[in-house]
Amino acid sequence: MTDSDLFATRWHAVRQRLIADQADALVLSRGSDLVYLSGYDAHALERLTAFVGAPNTDGIPTLFAPQLEVPLVTAMPDVFTISGWTDDQDPVAMVAEQIVGAQRVLVSDEMRADHLLALQSLMPDTTFVSLSASLGGLRSIKSDAEMQAIQTVGGLANQVAAQLQSGEIPLVGRSEAEIAEDITARLLAVGHETVEFCIVASGPNSASPHHHPGNRIVQAGEMVLCDFGGKHKGYCSDITRCVWTGDIPADVSATYDTLKKAQQAAVDAARPGASLGDVDAAARNVIADAGFGSQFIHRTGHGIGTEVHEQPYVTKDNTQVVEVGHAFSIEPGIYVEGKWGMRLEDIVVVVDDGAIRCSTTDHNLIAVRA
Amino acid sequence: MTDSDLFATRWHAVRQRLIADQADALVLSRGSDLVYLSGYDAHALERLTAFVGAPNTDGIPTLFAPQLEVPLVTAMPDVFTISGWTDDQDPVAMVAEQIVGAQRVLVSDEMRADHLLALQSLMPDTTFVSLSASLGGLRSIKSDAEMQAIQTVGGLANQVAAQLQSGEIPLVGRSEAEIAEDITARLLAVGHETVEFCIVASGPNSASPHHHPGNRIVQAGEMVLCDFGGKHKGYCSDITRCVWTGDIPADVSATYDTLKKAQQAAVDAARPGASLGDVDAAARNVIADAGFGSQFIHRTGHGIGTEVHEQPYVTKDNTQVVEVGHAFSIEPGIYVEGKWGMRLEDIVVVVDDGAIRCSTTDHNLIAVRA
Repeated sequence: MTDSDLFATRWHAVRQRLIADQADALVLSRGSDLVYLSGYDAHALERLTAFVGAPNTDGIPTLFAPQLEVPLVTAMPDVFTISGWTDDQDPVAMVAEQIVGAQRVLVSDEMRADHLLALQSLMPDTTFVSLSASLGGLRSIKSDAEMQAIQTVGGLANQVAAQLQSGEIPLVGRSEAEIAEDITARLLAVGHETVEFCIVASGPNSASPHHHPGNRIVQAGEMVLCDFGGKHKGYCSDITRCVWTGDIPADVSATYDTLKKAQQAAVDAARPGASLGDVDAAARNVIADAGFGSQFIHRTGHGIGTEVHEQPYVTKDNTQVVEVGHAFSIEPGIYVEGKWGMRLEDIVVVVDDGAIRCSTTDHNLIAVRA
Repeated sequence: MTDSDLFATRWHAVRQRLIADQADALVLSRGSDLVYLSGYDAHALERLTAFVGAPNTDGIPTLFAPQLEVPLVTAMPDVFTISGWTDDQDPVAMVAEQIVGAQRVLVSDEMRADHLLALQSLMPDTTFVSLSASLGGLRSIKSDAEMQAIQTVGGLANQVAAQLQSGEIPLVGRSEAEIAEDITARLLAVGHETVEFCIVASGPNSASPHHHPGNRIVQAGEMVLCDFGGKHKGYCSDITRCVWTGDIPADVSATYDTLKKAQQAAVDAARPGASLGDVDAAARNVIADAGFGSQFIHRTGHGIGTEVHEQPYVTKDNTQVVEVGHAFSIEPGIYVEGKWGMRLEDIVVVVDDGAIRCSTTDHNLIAVRA
């Protein structure tokens, strides 16, 4: 399939969803939704780039781009028309003109507030709705090729997690920042093109789920939580494993068993037809039943694809239904402030009969030599 | 001045501007405005971080942050109250509750559309206005310390531009991408902490103002346009110089003289009390008078500070007045498709009696050895 065919096929499918949603127009600004429908990764600056489609017409969408960036757009005349705007024109007015009369307009979640407010003031009788609130996002159902891409990149991150568990990555005596640099280099070495994030949180720092790796030197006899991922061919990996630098205390080991059971329960619950809230509850109930409910302080997971976090979200009471083609993280955690935190994360892709893990390295808390 | 004093002083000044604007509340999400008022550089992810201030009360603002990121916030109890939200709470509802009854609410330009739309639906009788449309942005008037920081980082980029002009950076026979890597390394070597962008555009590619450096090998006897910048202590540099690999043809030389005069005219026009449109016109008129009007295809400049592009913008017909404390680029260009493009850029800071250039290296088109 050529790129042009791929994007035309995607627009065709999105168009049907827009019609079903009774939307008169779609307006995407910079970001992953734009890349998904046009292949164009616009500058994340203040000049408006907008992909504008009207599902009720046979016309192809229009890509409005700053004239000075038009040379960066790969033209696909069967997919979209390019309209360059110059600095003495008002691109928001051009977009409003294009969709004049539209009653219901869906906009990308990442659109800037200044652009949205300007569009709203030119179209006071129009209802604007975000893609997440209307369609649950554009990109939440992955194609077979996308599922394969997510499994492939997940396998790359899995290799580095296995290196961590084998003791191949020195920990004790090094700073979190040094270890993060080491893991970053390894993520690139196994084939990631970019590294999107790398959390290394040691000892009490592991109780801060989004800790920035810093100068703290890893000691013997403590938790080291590593959560990292990157991109390969445009798709993201994300994995978390914990290791203990020495002999694991009995209470830590027992708590980790609860965490592992919770993660498995959520993977088992992630079947087409269940709700995302059911998946969250499966993990949360195991942890709550063991008495750690108040220490699982975040959702169970997030969708993943061309962005590390995207639709759908595995949150408490989310009634949205799990569908074939969903890809999301399952990452329960238990955090004891001042002492340690633990999290266990795999990405799963959902097929007919359940969820497939994209990472398979040991799910236990491993004792590495001090 | 402690950080806490700095941020308290900034809030005090912003509060007066909000009162003068008859705004009942300010809501900042992630981004540079948030850093400016709280010191907190929030994750650029989907979870809402919001700094909410009500100028008509004596209360200090509230920083709403995801509970799992609260450990990353440096607490300043005299500046803001921290309110962590968990994944089973609705942070937009918490913000709406905080500003209930507000008639006019200013929001940061970078707020995500999904967050703004959710806030609008909870507050249907409230008018939301972007900071750029109301106050011309929060950060457009720089303090003396900020002006100094911008001059300092401008001086760093200036050193690398001088290296380019001296012939110290090999060009002919190397790809644009290699040269961009070399310039990136030099920007770091002279003291930048990060490099934000580096355009190297050779031969006909120089006619594309936002060209991505690629595999094209630089030849003898052609234009090489380099436009680059980075950050030092949080403030940005941005400079453009062109060199010619060999003897400069007479027509190119003559056109460049026009460009240089246009840039000087705009620097001269950038005085307190003139409009930003006047500054744009000063450059544009010189270029138009020489017959190249249609080949100057972008605005004359953009504000700069903690972001490479920020308020104010030096655009055609902009009636906004130049003020002491403004910092912006002056960067006219002339582009001949298929042949070459040229641009000359300095950052200026505006003081009582005019504009001071932050880069002083040679403003001529330099012939470097082939």
